[in-house]
Amino acid sequence: MVEKDESLLERFGNHPTPFYYYDGDAMSAHVSSLLARLHPAVRIHYALKANGNVALAGLLRSLGCGVEIASAGELFVAMEAGYAAEDVLYAGPGKTAAELSEAVACGIGCIHVESVRELRLLEDIAARAGLFVRAAVRINPDNDLSGATIKMGGVPRPFGVDEGQLDHFFETLEECPHVYFQGIQVYTGTQMLKADQILASFANTLQLAERVQARYGVAMHTVNLGGGFGVPYFAHEQPLDMEQVIDGLNALAEQTRSRMPGVTLIIESGRYLVAQAGRYVCRALYTKESKGEKFVVADGGMNHYVSATFRGRRLRDNYPVRIMRRQVTEQEVREMGANMRMGQQNAPIQEDIAVELPGEVANRIEEHSTEASLELETVSIVGPLCTPEDCMVKKAQLPPIQEGDYIVFPNAGAYGLSYSPVHFLGHATPAELLDFRGEVHVIREHGDRTDLLHHQRMIPLPEDAL
Amino acid sequence: MVEKDESLLERFGNHPTPFYYYDGDAMSAHVSSLLARLHPAVRIHYALKANGNVALAGLLRSLGCGVEIASAGELFVAMEAGYAAEDVLYAGPGKTAAELSEAVACGIGCIHVESVRELRLLEDIAARAGLFVRAAVRINPDNDLSGATIKMGGVPRPFGVDEGQLDHFFETLEECPHVYFQGIQVYTGTQMLKADQILASFANTLQLAERVQARYGVAMHTVNLGGGFGVPYFAHEQPLDMEQVIDGLNALAEQTRSRMPGVTLIIESGRYLVAQAGRYVCRALYTKESKGEKFVVADGGMNHYVSATFRGRRLRDNYPVRIMRRQVTEQEVREMGANMRMGQQNAPIQEDIAVELPGEVANRIEEHSTEASLELETVSIVGPLCTPEDCMVKKAQLPPIQEGDYIVFPNAGAYGLSYSPVHFLGHATPAELLDFRGEVHVIREHGDRTDLLHHQRMIPLPEDAL
Repeated sequence: MVEKDESLLERFGNHPTPFYYYDGDAMSAHVSSLLARLHPAVRIHYALKANGNVALAGLLRSLGCGVEIASAGELFVAMEAGYAAEDVLYAGPGKTAAELSEAVACGIGCIHVESVRELRLLEDIAARAGLFVRAAVRINPDNDLSGATIKMGGVPRPFGVDEGQLDHFFETLEECPHVYFQGIQVYTGTQMLKADQILASFANTLQLAERVQARYGVAMHTVNLGGGFGVPYFAHEQPLDMEQVIDGLNALAEQTRSRMPGVTLIIESGRYLVAQAGRYVCRALYTKESKGEKFVVADGGMNHYVSATFRGRRLRDNYPVRIMRRQVTEQEVREMGANMRMGQQNAPIQEDIAVELPGEVANRIEEHSTEASLELETVSIVGPLCTPEDCMVKKAQLPPIQEGDYIVFPNAGAYGLSYSPVHFLGHATPAELLDFRGEVHVIREHGDRTDLLHHQRMIPLPEDAL
Repeated sequence: MVEKDESLLERFGNHPTPFYYYDGDAMSAHVSSLLARLHPAVRIHYALKANGNVALAGLLRSLGCGVEIASAGELFVAMEAGYAAEDVLYAGPGKTAAELSEAVACGIGCIHVESVRELRLLEDIAARAGLFVRAAVRINPDNDLSGATIKMGGVPRPFGVDEGQLDHFFETLEECPHVYFQGIQVYTGTQMLKADQILASFANTLQLAERVQARYGVAMHTVNLGGGFGVPYFAHEQPLDMEQVIDGLNALAEQTRSRMPGVTLIIESGRYLVAQAGRYVCRALYTKESKGEKFVVADGGMNHYVSATFRGRRLRDNYPVRIMRRQVTEQEVREMGANMRMGQQNAPIQEDIAVELPGEVANRIEEHSTEASLELETVSIVGPLCTPEDCMVKKAQLPPIQEGDYIVFPNAGAYGLSYSPVHFLGHATPAELLDFRGEVHVIREHGDRTDLLHHQRMIPLPEDAL
């Protein structure tokens, strides 16, 4: 992906931190290039769970993606993002009757049925509504060739129907005249970085589809190969060889065409489409030292970007981070000094820069990265929460960070905000900025404190309760 | 704590799951009893981060607690809960200038200053506002006697001022005429279950307070001993001997009175006050089997109660769970059958029971617990999210669970909803119910799908973006 690095601080402008920043042009180029290289029988569906921002989802739609959702709430977001119902796939092991009813009523593209019980429920709902519904069966295959770190199949799992239970599923399907069978779905893993493992998994699913077609005599309209295209987060990870994946996938599509005429191969992808276009951006509020160790306290942390912290992390490596400095002119320091009477040599802290500096100030950008190995020091970067869990960077070698410096986490476009405990300790939710075709759009405004009380109700309290 | 067990399902009534249920009477009795036994020089402040519900916070206020907050957002909630500003303590390593200004302006009870830099900023803000502000210094002591699992001090930490840096702090304090020194705060750990360790930590802090008073000649109005009173979550954990803690604390208060006349000892407590009064309640949507293992898919999971899941857990034990069955009469089954045409022997799934059963139905309650060791089977309970992380109970021995059964997690009053990624995968946020003095109050309504789009903005998308 082409990045707008050299002008990044200019693009951030005076938007108060913390925020997520998405490079919409880079994302468009990345996704368009992927779509353009795929066999016409292959379709990409964006997994909305990776990032539920409506404008990002809308942009992916305009590029030609379908969408994959996992709840009625996500269905609502997908509709608001402009997806046609027929371009929506609905997956998830815990769909409620109310959610299924809604999906049936809107004419959803396909429901991935995950159990015989769900199939019966779906038939019942469709029958009562007098409607037909397209459905595929999610299969947990007997073997797993993916080599995925986070396995979703091939082992005992709550997802899908075991391959060994398919007889029962297809027997039941014959009693479900309102369910229009579409095909199968297999999702074996996520965050995969090895092309040959992905292709082996796809080939395995296509063989399974052929066996299902032969054994149960059902027409296969779609074979959903799942996804799992990974992105590297750490220095030791090699990027996925996407050329190899595309070549292999296109070859599989071409072969499949003859055996299952008219079939569409579906790829679900969340992380791979959006992760690398996103950055989480916060700023250094305080620098301090404790018992010989240096700490930087930032204005954002695990409440916004929990994936970067050490909460729930399997790998204990630090995510990469870049420190960027907006050079402040002497006049600005004087002005801020007059406003703040800081009486300090240090640069003023974040609030002042963000709020009080005029937007048109020409910034000189000093950018540091771990590669620029000058004067590095060992430092930990923590968020503002009162918990040791809120540690984003642990004892990393970084150039000296000053208060006011931008702390930028790349690869933050997926499983960022949506995955984080946004209200923990009551800080405002961050903004989201989409830089697209020359304009930086605010696609999510900063939250405010009233969000905390949304849906809450006080009760009358007896003063004598004690 | 006295529980309303035998009538619990009646109290749940027809409230649709998932929800949090708080026993306000049990919490009141628990907290009132604690407060009544404390030396008059000891004050309890509720740590709002444990549970940010405004009605719960209000109830604790009415019982006589102060409050401890960690952001301007939490200050807002505390005010809405009816706390007087002077009963509010404000802690946190990353307070912004805007937050400090707000706290100063409202006349907050005490700000726990965590660095010399913050002290200077606070003085500046108070001076500009022409106001005085009460402040204490949070100290990271040289030694740590707490034995806490989650250490917050005694080691290099971003929290507070190292004991070894106090000379610099108090030198700076002399240049801060608008900061009215209150005392010290030490918070060494959380979730402590050993009374002697807690008391050793308190004694240590009081000795530190005496040293500070002697060395720097400052009057000590408050000594904030922190908190960390734990509650047992797992079978192998012994409850904290609170009698011992109270006796020891009262003795310390009595001794301290003579050495530091007029001092108030402050205890911060979140988990201990509210955890045991809360339950997270969801229901079984689907039961299924995969490769010989049994799974139950519930209608709530890590999006609402991440602490119970295996995401981010150090201990891999299961949280205790109780399965409760609302007995359905034959007539009800017929009615639901007519509505749903399920054509199934199984009990209807959750939606139907919750939505369609009349409230006045006399329920026969079948309650199972792991102790009732009849016909147990090995089962895992997962939430509705499409991720293996959403596993709440892993291969536990439980009585057979049927669809529609209530799955009740006790001890869920603290670090439940506030700590969870509520919007992940777009399900509605759960309700919160407060059972108090005979009435079940809805203190948080179920969220709705428009929450997902709150603060979001769509942008115009060129149809030719490709």
